[in-house]
Amino acid sequence: MNFKIIIRVLGFLIFVEGIAMLLALAVSLIYGESDTYSFLISSGICVSLGGIIALLTNGANKDIGKREGFIIVALVWIVFSFFGTLPYILSNSIPNFTNAFFETMSGFTTTGSSILDDIEALPHGILFWRSLTQWLGGMGIIVLSLAILPVFGIGGMQLFVAEVPGPAPDKISPRIRQTAKTLWVIYLGFTITETVLLWIGGMSFYDAICHSFTTMATGGFSTKQASVAYWSSPFIQYVIIVFMFFAGTNFTLSYLALKGKFKSVFKDEEFRYYWIFVLGFTIIIFFGLLITSQLGVEQAFRDALFQVVSIITTTGFATADYLLWTPFLTIIIFGLFFFGGSAGSTGGGIKIMRIVLLIKNSYYELRRLIHPHAIIPVKFNKRSVDTKIITNVLAFFMLYFIIFAVSTVFFTLIEPDMESAMGAVATSLGNIGPGLGSVGPAENFNHISSIGKWFLSFLMLLGRLELFTILVLFSPSFWKQ
Amino acid sequence: MNFKIIIRVLGFLIFVEGIAMLLALAVSLIYGESDTYSFLISSGICVSLGGIIALLTNGANKDIGKREGFIIVALVWIVFSFFGTLPYILSNSIPNFTNAFFETMSGFTTTGSSILDDIEALPHGILFWRSLTQWLGGMGIIVLSLAILPVFGIGGMQLFVAEVPGPAPDKISPRIRQTAKTLWVIYLGFTITETVLLWIGGMSFYDAICHSFTTMATGGFSTKQASVAYWSSPFIQYVIIVFMFFAGTNFTLSYLALKGKFKSVFKDEEFRYYWIFVLGFTIIIFFGLLITSQLGVEQAFRDALFQVVSIITTTGFATADYLLWTPFLTIIIFGLFFFGGSAGSTGGGIKIMRIVLLIKNSYYELRRLIHPHAIIPVKFNKRSVDTKIITNVLAFFMLYFIIFAVSTVFFTLIEPDMESAMGAVATSLGNIGPGLGSVGPAENFNHISSIGKWFLSFLMLLGRLELFTILVLFSPSFWKQ
Repeated sequence: MNFKIIIRVLGFLIFVEGIAMLLALAVSLIYGESDTYSFLISSGICVSLGGIIALLTNGANKDIGKREGFIIVALVWIVFSFFGTLPYILSNSIPNFTNAFFETMSGFTTTGSSILDDIEALPHGILFWRSLTQWLGGMGIIVLSLAILPVFGIGGMQLFVAEVPGPAPDKISPRIRQTAKTLWVIYLGFTITETVLLWIGGMSFYDAICHSFTTMATGGFSTKQASVAYWSSPFIQYVIIVFMFFAGTNFTLSYLALKGKFKSVFKDEEFRYYWIFVLGFTIIIFFGLLITSQLGVEQAFRDALFQVVSIITTTGFATADYLLWTPFLTIIIFGLFFFGGSAGSTGGGIKIMRIVLLIKNSYYELRRLIHPHAIIPVKFNKRSVDTKIITNVLAFFMLYFIIFAVSTVFFTLIEPDMESAMGAVATSLGNIGPGLGSVGPAENFNHISSIGKWFLSFLMLLGRLELFTILVLFSPSFWKQ
Repeated sequence: MNFKIIIRVLGFLIFVEGIAMLLALAVSLIYGESDTYSFLISSGICVSLGGIIALLTNGANKDIGKREGFIIVALVWIVFSFFGTLPYILSNSIPNFTNAFFETMSGFTTTGSSILDDIEALPHGILFWRSLTQWLGGMGIIVLSLAILPVFGIGGMQLFVAEVPGPAPDKISPRIRQTAKTLWVIYLGFTITETVLLWIGGMSFYDAICHSFTTMATGGFSTKQASVAYWSSPFIQYVIIVFMFFAGTNFTLSYLALKGKFKSVFKDEEFRYYWIFVLGFTIIIFFGLLITSQLGVEQAFRDALFQVVSIITTTGFATADYLLWTPFLTIIIFGLFFFGGSAGSTGGGIKIMRIVLLIKNSYYELRRLIHPHAIIPVKFNKRSVDTKIITNVLAFFMLYFIIFAVSTVFFTLIEPDMESAMGAVATSLGNIGPGLGSVGPAENFNHISSIGKWFLSFLMLLGRLELFTILVLFSPSFWKQ
């Protein structure tokens, strides 16, 4: 194991985090608030620590193999969350370390669960940093899943892994850099466009940036305690719906769309199921709300669409409290906790592609029962899917379910109400944000005990890195050889 | 499609059901109660209808292919439940057809959910018939899964299908008959032994027979409203625990054990996991009860063991109301709703073997991630398991989960409390008996609306025939050709 390069990469990333903090510093300077010093110190710590590590690990062997890759990926989110707490703690915004870590992990994993009881009371710089953690986390996940992991042939987060025979850093770097750059431009472009639109719609420029950050990351942190419900403007809500939908789409498709290749986009099978799911569930909930509530037609439609897109993409913004809906609609929303955005998007959860493959395989199994000697492969995008991928997807689903079930059982020790426990676990594992019961959209996670917060933080990490990437580290065969 | 033979087989089975009713008739004659005539008429209807069908279909082509097999299996439970309602309706014990059908389907599928508010008020013959439906259902399922389906090569209910090339009725019949006879003798032997032991333990001979019937079928119908809790005798409870455990064991293993081959039994991987699961969950709940309740050590252990075995084998007898336990323990019990007995037992649910294969496959997937080019098959009983079987098991699990989720969502329209809806659906699909909330062990299903009862009856059938056997009938390719 090449530990030196692992430390070197992490050191470089801490340095980057320190640089990112300078953005929040700038915001706090603009508003002239008390949090300025906390950013100065935090940034100083990160930049200098990163610099020292760079010096100490100079001349490290640059070979990053599969094992090193796994370890770096797992550690990045932990290290980022650890140093990301500094501004919260130093500014006394979130003095308790457990709370600060929960909030930062919730940020970098783009979950959006919060422990804050009074968001509006915090300085602008701090809330900017909070939104920025999600934006960076979202950026990180698409670069990782679309640019870095495919090149290293690290499976688990990537369904169709393009394997490269052995590490050849000189050739890999340009390829990664090129893809990452393209993704970065698209991500930034979306963010800027949304910011402008929200600003036009009547948000302050500051709120517009913060919400664009957390929309594109499918994060869901808001600068308001009431979340997006604070703005009753339909225009603002529709803009956020559209960009949540984009954020939950595979960024490769966004790239194709920007190049004008709309035909390829609409031919993509995952995308087709994605919008069919969104539309289908919206229609059901729309009619459900029309029948059971006093809402007008437009508002019922908007509330239905907003909540469906927000949950299916794992963003977690709220314009309505789905816990107040009739149980039939609430439980549909809870069902959506187990969907997640498209593969290669910033969304978390199980992902549309996996769900489609799973349903197809179950359906094909019926045909296999009737024709036991025929070979009936599952098809996706008109290509036969390798059995290896099917087994992987099925193993993922099984693990997801086991982790959900076992964690829920464990969590009833912390939150004895079964619905709240299920909600807290499902929302953390799926990187969504709000849950059910005592952690619903109108509540927060502050009342959860410390052990509970650490546990949920771990689940967020596990879900964000799609289980395998973390669990593989606990497998003895990983450490052998 | 050879419809004539399908009708002929069903006619023969209706005839058998009519004969079985004579047993209940005998009981009602012994007690000299008012239900005698209802059995006379019911039996008369079934025997004569069966006879007429036999005459009309005389000379039918005896070829039963795979398709005919699927249809017969699906229809048997429906036809049996339909005619099985006659004694309830004619004796005015359950005058409503929906209720009578629910109770009979719950019987033949060995589920054990009941709509009866006052069980003790019913005549002895009727309660005997009620227990007998479970005993016949249990017998049916082991003969089907261990003797008939393997020979016809019908997969889905049988994990390791021994395929026979094409139907050759002359050779198949003796094989089926021989296996079925052996199973029948074991099943009867267990039932007699348990009856004697319960009788010695202090039950009336009548109660002892009825409870032995429903124990061996992992059914769970009791002649008392309070279920087994009616008898506080530890001896009686331990006897029932032991026989529930036997009933949840693969009957092939019981056969081996009776032949003295204990080594093969304990070497069987499914059996090993079965008793490890039982022991593990019992220990957790035992300590949980010691800490959170006022129970003495022996009673805490007995309550824990009884409820774990009762739920894991999908029997559903109750000696304690697990809804009154601390949420952590209740939710563990709910988790056990998704286990089920061993393959080739009378237990329903997902089954231990499937769960073990699923967990193993997920674990092996981690190794596959590290060594993507190695072929790492899942092993069971020291043999590599064919990928086809793994895909089938995974498809089963996925379907089970989808059906559970979609049904729960639908059921909140009938029973708006989410926990009750989840409990009702899970217990019906798993053929267990009691659920959660308003359908817990101290409650019954009488208050559920008619639509709800028909829906749950369908889920019982779906679960009992392990999904595929029913779902395949809805697949277009089944009817083609």
